[in-house]
Amino acid sequence: METALTPLEFGRRARRLYADREAVVDRDLRLTYGQFFERCDRWSAALQKLGVSAGDRIAYIAPNVHAQLESFYSVLQIGAVLVPLNYRLTADDFAYLSRIVCAHPDYVDAVDRVRSQLPKVEHLVSLGEIRHGWLDYESTLKSSPPEFAHPVIHETDLATINYTGGTTSRPKGVMITHRNAYMNVVGTLIHFPMTPADRYLWTLPMFHANGWTFVWTVTAAGGTHVCLGKVEAKTAFEKINSERITVMCAAPTVLIFLANAPERVRKGVRAGVRVLTAGAPPAAATIERIESEFGWILTHIYGLTETSPFISVCEPRPEHQAFTAPELCDIKARQCVELITSGELRVVNAEGNEVPHDGQTLGEITASGNVVMKGYYDDPDATAKVIRDGWFYTGDAAVVHPDGYIEVRDRLKDVIISGGENISSVEVEGVLLRHAAGQEVAVVGFPDEKWGETPRAFVVLKPGASITEDELRQFARERMAHFKIPQSFIFLAELPKTATGKIQKYVLRGNRAAIHMQ
Amino acid sequence: METALTPLEFGRRARRLYADREAVVDRDLRLTYGQFFERCDRWSAALQKLGVSAGDRIAYIAPNVHAQLESFYSVLQIGAVLVPLNYRLTADDFAYLSRIVCAHPDYVDAVDRVRSQLPKVEHLVSLGEIRHGWLDYESTLKSSPPEFAHPVIHETDLATINYTGGTTSRPKGVMITHRNAYMNVVGTLIHFPMTPADRYLWTLPMFHANGWTFVWTVTAAGGTHVCLGKVEAKTAFEKINSERITVMCAAPTVLIFLANAPERVRKGVRAGVRVLTAGAPPAAATIERIESEFGWILTHIYGLTETSPFISVCEPRPEHQAFTAPELCDIKARQCVELITSGELRVVNAEGNEVPHDGQTLGEITASGNVVMKGYYDDPDATAKVIRDGWFYTGDAAVVHPDGYIEVRDRLKDVIISGGENISSVEVEGVLLRHAAGQEVAVVGFPDEKWGETPRAFVVLKPGASITEDELRQFARERMAHFKIPQSFIFLAELPKTATGKIQKYVLRGNRAAIHMQ
Repeated sequence: METALTPLEFGRRARRLYADREAVVDRDLRLTYGQFFERCDRWSAALQKLGVSAGDRIAYIAPNVHAQLESFYSVLQIGAVLVPLNYRLTADDFAYLSRIVCAHPDYVDAVDRVRSQLPKVEHLVSLGEIRHGWLDYESTLKSSPPEFAHPVIHETDLATINYTGGTTSRPKGVMITHRNAYMNVVGTLIHFPMTPADRYLWTLPMFHANGWTFVWTVTAAGGTHVCLGKVEAKTAFEKINSERITVMCAAPTVLIFLANAPERVRKGVRAGVRVLTAGAPPAAATIERIESEFGWILTHIYGLTETSPFISVCEPRPEHQAFTAPELCDIKARQCVELITSGELRVVNAEGNEVPHDGQTLGEITASGNVVMKGYYDDPDATAKVIRDGWFYTGDAAVVHPDGYIEVRDRLKDVIISGGENISSVEVEGVLLRHAAGQEVAVVGFPDEKWGETPRAFVVLKPGASITEDELRQFARERMAHFKIPQSFIFLAELPKTATGKIQKYVLRGNRAAIHMQ
Repeated sequence: METALTPLEFGRRARRLYADREAVVDRDLRLTYGQFFERCDRWSAALQKLGVSAGDRIAYIAPNVHAQLESFYSVLQIGAVLVPLNYRLTADDFAYLSRIVCAHPDYVDAVDRVRSQLPKVEHLVSLGEIRHGWLDYESTLKSSPPEFAHPVIHETDLATINYTGGTTSRPKGVMITHRNAYMNVVGTLIHFPMTPADRYLWTLPMFHANGWTFVWTVTAAGGTHVCLGKVEAKTAFEKINSERITVMCAAPTVLIFLANAPERVRKGVRAGVRVLTAGAPPAAATIERIESEFGWILTHIYGLTETSPFISVCEPRPEHQAFTAPELCDIKARQCVELITSGELRVVNAEGNEVPHDGQTLGEITASGNVVMKGYYDDPDATAKVIRDGWFYTGDAAVVHPDGYIEVRDRLKDVIISGGENISSVEVEGVLLRHAAGQEVAVVGFPDEKWGETPRAFVVLKPGASITEDELRQFARERMAHFKIPQSFIFLAELPKTATGKIQKYVLRGNRAAIHMQ
C-alpha cells in the first residue's frame, strides 16, 4: 500500500502524539503542537477563502518567526507551493512570483516600494503589524475557522520553490517536491538522531533550503523549535542556556562568529549541544575550537539547495576512535559519504568517469537520487545544464580519498559564499561593468573571519577614466543587495589571463598579498 | 528526481563504501562486503543462466546461513521474488510456489521426500552438500561470472513473499514490495540508530518477515552480520562475547530463554547490547530482568509480517527520565507509538471509530501507510478481509493510554469474555510472571456454562522451582480483579510454540482434554 511521502505526514504524527508538547518558542510566545497546528489550519482556511488553490504560489519574506514556520504546514496542506524568500534579495528578484506575498514588518516597506512592479500579486499580508492596504495575518487567522478543504497531495507535487543565487544574475527557483523534502528529513534523522527531548535553536534561516528541512525534521522528532531573531552572539548564547538548547544547525561562518564572541559572552555556555554544520567547508581548526572550547559535538553534512539539501555526511567509523582530536577534525572537515537515503554520489572528470580515490584528482560532484530537485522553475534550459542523464551536477570540485570519503576543494565556478549565502561573481562583475569607467572586472572571494568569504573586485579602468573606490561602492550599493557588495576594490592596469583570454582568478586569489602591496 | 525505493540501494551503497569491512561471519567463514556482493552477483548470473527472469519466484528453506543472506540481494537484483520459507512448514505448504527451491542440507531430505508433488519446480539447489539430482550452490556460484543483466526495478515490484500464519489455516503469502522493505529499514534506523561499528547477532530467523528487514538494515548501516546456527544459550552467549556483538533482535520467548540459562553459561556476558524485541508483548518483568541482569538496553517494537513488519515503537520521552526502573519497564512493555515513517495507527471499535484514550477500552489496531503489504499472494478474499478502505486490520486488541501510547492486550481471538467482561490473556500472564517461580505462562479461555468463558493458566516453572496451584491463585488474587483469576492452573514442562517462538494457544485450547488427563 502506498501513501504519499510528504513532510505533512510528520505534522500529522506530531499533532496526534505531541499535542501537549511545546512546539515553538518565539520571544514570549509559546505554542504547543496542538495550538500550533490549529493556527496552521486556520491560516489554511484563510488562504482558501482568499482564493488560493492547489498549485498556487505563496511567497514569504521573513526572519525566523513562528509565522514563517507555520507557512511550511499551512501552505503545503492546501496543495499550494511555498516560496520562502531570502530577505537579502531585492524586490525585483521575486516580483514575478506569486499571488500572495506575506511579509514580516521588517520588509513591508521594501515590498511597498516595489508594489507597482508586482502586478500578479493579489494580496499582501503583514506578518505582524497592521498596515494600510495589507491584510493582517494574526487577525485574519484568528477569525478563520480551523476547517479547510483537503486536496489530494501526490508525493511528486511541488512543496516549495527555493531561490538560489547561481552563476547568472537572475536567481533560479529550485523546485522541491513533497517526496524530496520527506526523503531529506528521514535521511537527516538516520544520521543525526533526534528525540522529543530535543530543543532546536533556529539560527539558520528557514528560507535557506527550508532551513535544511529542519522546519519539518524537528517536528518529526517531536522536538521544540526555538526561534532566534537576529543571530547576535549574546542573544544566541543566552537562548542556548535559558531554553536548554540541545541541537542547532549553523554554517561555519556562524560557528566562527560564535567562537569569536567576547569571552564574557560565551563563558558558561551549555555543553553537549549537537551541531549540524554545512553551507561551506568548515575549517578543521573551527571544528576543533567549537568542540574543545564549547564541548559541542559537530556533524559536518553537505549538499545544495538543489538536493533538498543533503547528499553527504561525515559518518564516523570504528577506526576513527583511534584518531587524535586534530585528525578527527580533519575527517570532520570532509564531506565524506552519501547518506543512507540520499542516493548515489560520484566525483567525475570532464568525460563523466569517476576519478581515482587518491585524495588528489579533482572532479565534479554529481548526485542521483530522491533528494535531487524536480528542476528549476520555469527554466528548462538551466535545468538541462545541471541535470544530465539522471545525474545532477553540483558544480563543486572535489577529491576522493582512499577510504572513499570525498572532500570539496573548490566551486567549479567561482561562486563566493558569504555568510552562508551564494554570491555569483559573474553577477557582481556584471553590475560593476555597467559603470561607464569600468573596462574589466573580476570578482573573487577572499577568506573572511566573520563571513567565511567576502567578495573583492579587481577593476581595470577604461583608458583616461577615473573613479574612486567610494564612488564605485556607492554605484554598487544602488544596484545590488548589500551582502553582494565587494569589500574592497583594487585597481589594476590589467588582469591576469590565459592565452585564450580567460581571466585567471586563481592568480588573483593567490597573489592577494602582492596585489595589496601595490 | 525519483529513483526507486528499494533495499538494493543499501547494498549499492555498502558495496561502494564498505567493500573492505566485514559483512558476514558464518562459523569459520568471514566475508567482506566486497566479497559478499561479488558472490551475490555470481549467483544472480547463475540464476539468470537457469532461466530465471524478473517476477519469477525463488524459494529458500534454510537456517540463518550466509547463503540465505545472499538471497536477499542475488534474487532481488535480477527482479525475481524471494520466498524465504519457514523451515517448520511442510513441503505441501510450498509445493505450488516457485521454479527453483534452494535448501540447506538440513532440509534436502524433506524436500526429496515430496519432490514428486513439486511439478512446477524446475531446479533444486543444495546450499551446502553435493547430492544427486541437486545443483550445488557453491560450485555453481563459483563457476559463474559476476556479470548479470540488470532489469529495471520499480519500487512497487514485489521483493519477497513471506508465509505467515498457518496455525489454524493454510499459510498466507504476504507480498512485500521493494518500497515496503525500504521504508521499514529507514524507519528502523531512525528509531534504532546503528553505525558501521555495529555487529549484529542473527538469532531471529531471516525467513521471519525478512528478519524484521535486518537482512538489509545491518547492511545499510555498514555493520556486520554474525550468523548463529541453532539458538542455543551457550553458543549464543559465547558468540556475543567472542564476536563483540552490539545489536540483536529477539522475541520475548528468546529473551526469557536466555535469561533462564544456567548461571555458569550467562555469567560474564557483554553488557550494553542493544536489543530490539517484538513478536509478542514482552512482560515488564522480562524487560527488567534482561536490563538489570545483563546490562542490555531493550527497545520494544511492534508489527506484523503484513506490515513489513514495524508499525509502532516504544519511544522514550523526556518525562520518562523521572520514572523508576519498574515504571520504565511498564512503559517499555507497551507498543506505544507509530514510527516516524510507518504511517498512521488507529485503535478502533467494531464501528471503526477510535476508542477513547483511557487505558481501558479495547479496540483493534489498524494501520495505513507505506509499510502495509501489497496483499496476500493469490488470495484476494483473504486480502479483502484484512485491508478495508485503505486500512490494514491487525487482529490485535489494544487500549490507548491517556498519553496516546497504545498497549496490545491480546490477539482479538484470544480475548477472553467472561460474564460479559473482557479479559486480556496477556495482562493475566504478565501478573503471573511476576511470581519468582514462573518461567512462562499462557492464559487461555475455556468454555464455561455459567460465565461463557473462564481463563485457565498454563505454567512452566523455572528449573528447580516449586509452587502449588493454591499458592499461585493466592498470588493472583492479591494482584487482580477477581473475575480475571484463572479458574485452574496447569503445570507443563514446556509450552507448544511456532518456529518463531510464538505460543500456540490453539493447541492449549484444543488439547485441553489430553492435558487435563496428565
